Amino acid sequence: MSGVAIHKFTTAHPGDVSGYKLLPKSCAPEDLVAVIGKTEGNGCVNDFTRMLSSTVWDPLLEASHGISVFSGGTEGVLSPHVSLVTKEADYLNVDGSKKYSEGLVAKVGGTRDFEPWEMGTEVQAKITAETVKKLMAELEVEADDVHMVLVKCPLLTTAKVVASAKPCVTVDTYKSMGYSRLATAVGIALALGEVAEDGIKTALDSYGEVGWSSRASCSSGAELENCHVVVLASSKKASNPYRALHGYMADAIDLKVLLELTSKIPEGAERTQIFVKAEPSTDGVVRGKRHTMMTDSDIQGTRHARAAVGGLVAGVWGETDVYVSGGAEGQGPMGGGSVCVVYKV
Amino acid sequence: MSGVAIHKFTTAHPGDVSGYKLLPKSCAPEDLVAVIGKTEGNGCVNDFTRMLSSTVWDPLLEASHGISVFSGGTEGVLSPHVSLVTKEADYLNVDGSKKYSEGLVAKVGGTRDFEPWEMGTEVQAKITAETVKKLMAELEVEADDVHMVLVKCPLLTTAKVVASAKPCVTVDTYKSMGYSRLATAVGIALALGEVAEDGIKTALDSYGEVGWSSRASCSSGAELENCHVVVLASSKKASNPYRALHGYMADAIDLKVLLELTSKIPEGAERTQIFVKAEPSTDGVVRGKRHTMMTDSDIQGTRHARAAVGGLVAGVWGETDVYVSGGAEGQGPMGGGSVCVVYKV
Amino acid sequence: MSGVAIHKFTTAHPGDVSGYKLLPKSCAPEDLVAVIGKTEGNGCVNDFTRMLSSTVWDPLLEASHGISVFSGGTEGVLSPHVSLVTKEADYLNVDGSKKYSEGLVAKVGGTRDFEPWEMGTEVQAKITAETVKKLMAELEVEADDVHMVLVKCPLLTTAKVVASAKPCVTVDTYKSMGYSRLATAVGIALALGEVAEDGIKTALDSYGEVGWSSRASCSSGAELENCHVVVLASSKKASNPYRALHGYMADAIDLKVLLELTSKIPEGAERTQIFVKAEPSTDGVVRGKRHTMMTDSDIQGTRHARAAVGGLVAGVWGETDVYVSGGAEGQGPMGGGSVCVVYKV
Amino acid sequence: MSGVAIHKFTTAHPGDVSGYKLLPKSCAPEDLVAVIGKTEGNGCVNDFTRMLSSTVWDPLLEASHGISVFSGGTEGVLSPHVSLVTKEADYLNVDGSKKYSEGLVAKVGGTRDFEPWEMGTEVQAKITAETVKKLMAELEVEADDVHMVLVKCPLLTTAKVVASAKPCVTVDTYKSMGYSRLATAVGIALALGEVAEDGIKTALDSYGEVGWSSRASCSSGAELENCHVVVLASSKKASNPYRALHGYMADAIDLKVLLELTSKIPEGAERTQIFVKAEPSTDGVVRGKRHTMMTDSDIQGTRHARAAVGGLVAGVWGETDVYVSGGAEGQGPMGGGSVCVVYKV
Repeated sequence: MSGVAIHKFTTAHPGDVSGYKLLPKSCAPEDLVAVIGKTEGNGCVNDFTRMLSSTVWDPLLEASHGISVFSGGTEGVLSPHVSLVTKEADYLNVDGSKKYSEGLVAKVGGTRDFEPWEMGTEVQAKITAETVKKLMAELEVEADDVHMVLVKCPLLTTAKVVASAKPCVTVDTYKSMGYSRLATAVGIALALGEVAEDGIKTALDSYGEVGWSSRASCSSGAELENCHVVVLASSKKASNPYRALHGYMADAIDLKVLLELTSKIPEGAERTQIFVKAEPSTDGVVRGKRHTMMTDSDIQGTRHARAAVGGLVAGVWGETDVYVSGGAEGQGPMGGGSVCVVYKV
Repeated sequence: MSGVAIHKFTTAHPGDVSGYKLLPKSCAPEDLVAVIGKTEGNGCVNDFTRMLSSTVWDPLLEASHGISVFSGGTEGVLSPHVSLVTKEADYLNVDGSKKYSEGLVAKVGGTRDFEPWEMGTEVQAKITAETVKKLMAELEVEADDVHMVLVKCPLLTTAKVVASAKPCVTVDTYKSMGYSRLATAVGIALALGEVAEDGIKTALDSYGEVGWSSRASCSSGAELENCHVVVLASSKKASNPYRALHGYMADAIDLKVLLELTSKIPEGAERTQIFVKAEPSTDGVVRGKRHTMMTDSDIQGTRHARAAVGGLVAGVWGETDVYVSGGAEGQGPMGGGSVCVVYKV
Repeated sequence: MSGVAIHKFTTAHPGDVSGYKLLPKSCAPEDLVAVIGKTEGNGCVNDFTRMLSSTVWDPLLEASHGISVFSGGTEGVLSPHVSLVTKEADYLNVDGSKKYSEGLVAKVGGTRDFEPWEMGTEVQAKITAETVKKLMAELEVEADDVHMVLVKCPLLTTAKVVASAKPCVTVDTYKSMGYSRLATAVGIALALGEVAEDGIKTALDSYGEVGWSSRASCSSGAELENCHVVVLASSKKASNPYRALHGYMADAIDLKVLLELTSKIPEGAERTQIFVKAEPSTDGVVRGKRHTMMTDSDIQGTRHARAAVGGLVAGVWGETDVYVSGGAEGQGPMGGGSVCVVYKV
Repeated sequence: MSGVAIHKFTTAHPGDVSGYKLLPKSCAPEDLVAVIGKTEGNGCVNDFTRMLSSTVWDPLLEASHGISVFSGGTEGVLSPHVSLVTKEADYLNVDGSKKYSEGLVAKVGGTRDFEPWEMGTEVQAKITAETVKKLMAELEVEADDVHMVLVKCPLLTTAKVVASAKPCVTVDTYKSMGYSRLATAVGIALALGEVAEDGIKTALDSYGEVGWSSRASCSSGAELENCHVVVLASSKKASNPYRALHGYMADAIDLKVLLELTSKIPEGAERTQIFVKAEPSTDGVVRGKRHTMMTDSDIQGTRHARAAVGGLVAGVWGETDVYVSGGAEGQGPMGGGSVCVVYKV
């Protein structure tokens, strides 16, 4: 089966792999399925902390053909960390029967590389959708079982734009990050049945306002040319103590949904991790009042959003090594963002 | 009496005084006691949005000899706004008796200008304390009645440091902001009896770890050379519907205290404003986990702290034009910050 | 006649008008034609130092119906300053004949306000061209006589984009600054006969690569909705000791052209001011080698360009209060920028 | 002998080692003595591009026990690149006699690791001096033969400060970079006889104003705990076509010295590389006019200085992959910086 556990470790710097040695002794090298990390860069185009983390972690993922997803940006109180997703055998009773009636499962995979002119387009959306569907099939789960599809997707650099054989979706390298996340999210929504095939264009054109998924979590980076995909789901076929919940923040200060989701964690359960997407609302306001995240030429909007939502999420979760990622185009409603909570009963 | 009301208006830009015209018609020019604003600059040394706001508001404060306190920095979801503190006559019943048994009162004043070498030192602390005590005496309130002492204090620029006749507390202009806030806060603590005269040195030397006030709210700026002081208190001698509460965040993610304070607001009361101080903890951790606010050379630590705490406070308060100010040296415990809540019954 | 002098003063901060009092006593209030300043903001969307400077200088320009052009950004060695353009009567010999056979002349004016959807488009180009032509006619100069057309043009804020009745050229506020400068520059090129009416579209579509003016100097800001225009020219009808030269940097490190232009200043003449436009080349390279100005998400490309070109220009000019402005779309060749040198014989 | 060549390659990103394969075929792995690179980070505390470059280059330096020196920050026009210093056998005539009467020589080495409380102090200066002297002895060169001592030195992070057994020179992580560079530079000056042993304290206390070396080039980073030292000199005992010159910029716009030094390069010689240090002058002015490099809370002063001086140096050198490093405490006069020029006859 594809049962998984999630182990979280803080990092001293983006090149720190010390968490690897802290994994349970039962974890063999081929059991490390995915590394999902927050690094302390700017989370934007020239964030090479992600590349540094990939450089040191990817060799440790070779044995398992696993993937890494590093999201840059630990603004405000956020603490750099890695969540190591490892294979977890079914928990059995002494009589060999399953100890739990369900469990957390995960599969990872990659799309093909994208050409510069494909990034941020329908092509990227459809190819991502195919990969998500393939992973869901391998997991033997339905759309309703899925709690989060976490994707690391590529971006455009000036060099790529200049070298591109066809026009790119934008020449602005920072903006290309948003288009790439959007196309990826629309692909996830397609795979999960939240957007129909003929709704892709509308979703892309509306910049995710019409057609989005509350289970998509996408971050873009210069360190790859394809999409790295992690599908996280619940399955009755697995038997382990990890559980997940999902929902979405309706705006950047939606404390209510965070309190509701966390209140569903049973008494005595252990909080594993919370994954949240954040963004500056494109209409320039939060609950009718002007924000300055998009008119600040010193700090990028995604950095502002991560810091603010990170402060709220850390306040609710009670710790600061939470996964808050910036740029939520198509990943929850405009101005809000997807939320996924994992805990251990 | 010194009864006051607080009227809050969002601003379109730092030069926007349109809120002035939206004051109740009963407000005469001489009734505007103080303008307490958040502007959309970086809140640091070269934040000229504060100077712009002073330039346009100060003429409107002349009639009342009122003062302005502009705190720069609306990172994350925070919304630029002004809180206009206006004189509010006692509310009376038809028989001429007081309608309320208490009310919110305020007095404003300024210290003398400080020399460059006095900034951030015991001199600044003591002179600030004198002004606070004078205002408390004028208000006829005791230390226990005071909810917040809000101060705008000066900072050192390169020009001032170079021209100074004596050595300054620091040559680092950004750092001078912290020292100025610290000395001011220690002065407030002295006036409120939270620090003894012989404890000033310890408080300054410990950078506010030993000796602080949960009712101090200080912000520094290049637009003035003295301290602008606002004392906000409850008084049995006044009769108006404004009430205040105070407390402090123990760290930057202290959701608990915010929920506790707001839960004390009576059902049906109207939320007026919340004033919170924020800072990156100097030990580099929040609840034991590393933050990157002080090792980020792209974004100053106070900006990070405002964004994160701003996200949390806005989530709790339910709106984004809250007053969250960065740099809480001596204004609450290390890493935390003072909190003052105003509401209208 | 429209003879002018240029007086340069450093400023202590963006609200500093002390230079006004240092003007020659012969200058009456109605003689101040234009204030051309560099302020120490980020030169981008949320640069309110320009608004602060306008707020304090514009009242001083009322008597003359003069205009202000503040360009934000004094990165690197650049020193904040103002150049005051004042009316200068013809220099005469004792016999009443003209002392000089030529002189520097200038006229200022403004276009109508632009709607959000007009900014950065052909409309803005054409209307700017009309104003430039009108001012040239008033000056009685030909295109060849003109050395510089300096314009302050508007930009798009999130609020304007959201409120716009029609689609805007971009929703990205920082990018709107470039489009506005481009349209303005193309308008200047049209007025000067460097671009034909039917070449406007090509010039705009090519982002100034095809169709530009080496005499255009445009900067955009949030502090106005129309274009402020200054035309600077040589005229045989005037008699004063001010002279000007113009040329363009072919790329951002074009030391050669700067040395050539300055070598034309006669021995013994006094250097008045140099006006230079700078930008990151859009192909991502300078003389074939990669630059990082457009992939840096912490510092905007125009800031990088101003700092670098500012260092070079200050080195050549020998002082740091030179006018170097960022964003040279259509103002010189791609990656380079217009240059205008003023001196006094 | 210790003859060396310098080969320069631009890099596509900080993890790019493609230049290694472009070395002449005659270069064996043990011939790579040093990698001196400019990376595209912020050059400050959280610049992990240096760590990324170290991570990918250091394995290639193992065979030769070579060292890497990565200086972060390619602001403005500067182009990320690496200069590979390789062993170069003496050039001989067919009769076995030396082809050249002199040549460029180099040696590299490292000091011991420094404790947090030693950084920026006399201890660091003296230990650095010892290493420099040792390398000079190995090279059999005198102080006058040395053109540049290039050092990568450590810095303080919040974690180190907190963990330190004794008080550190500063708790400000960004400032620690300057103190570390200063102590290193003073150590170099000591080794070269430019500062006497009893002048160390004065040099440190004056922040390099009294007691500096025009041949010191120091940059600090979080990626090491000791000093990496490269000594570059001319030697009559070597025979190769590489030559070097040195001097210093008296201030940040000292075009004159750059033109003088480059004018000494013989006609027909090939320009190899120029190494320059840059800094914001601590008195806040350049040639009497205010700069804003130290009051800008958005961009660190060293970034400003690199951008400006980089623009000037690239203009003179005619290419943008020049080595300009920020923070010149004790490396040239206050506000200026050391300059070293290498060419091939």
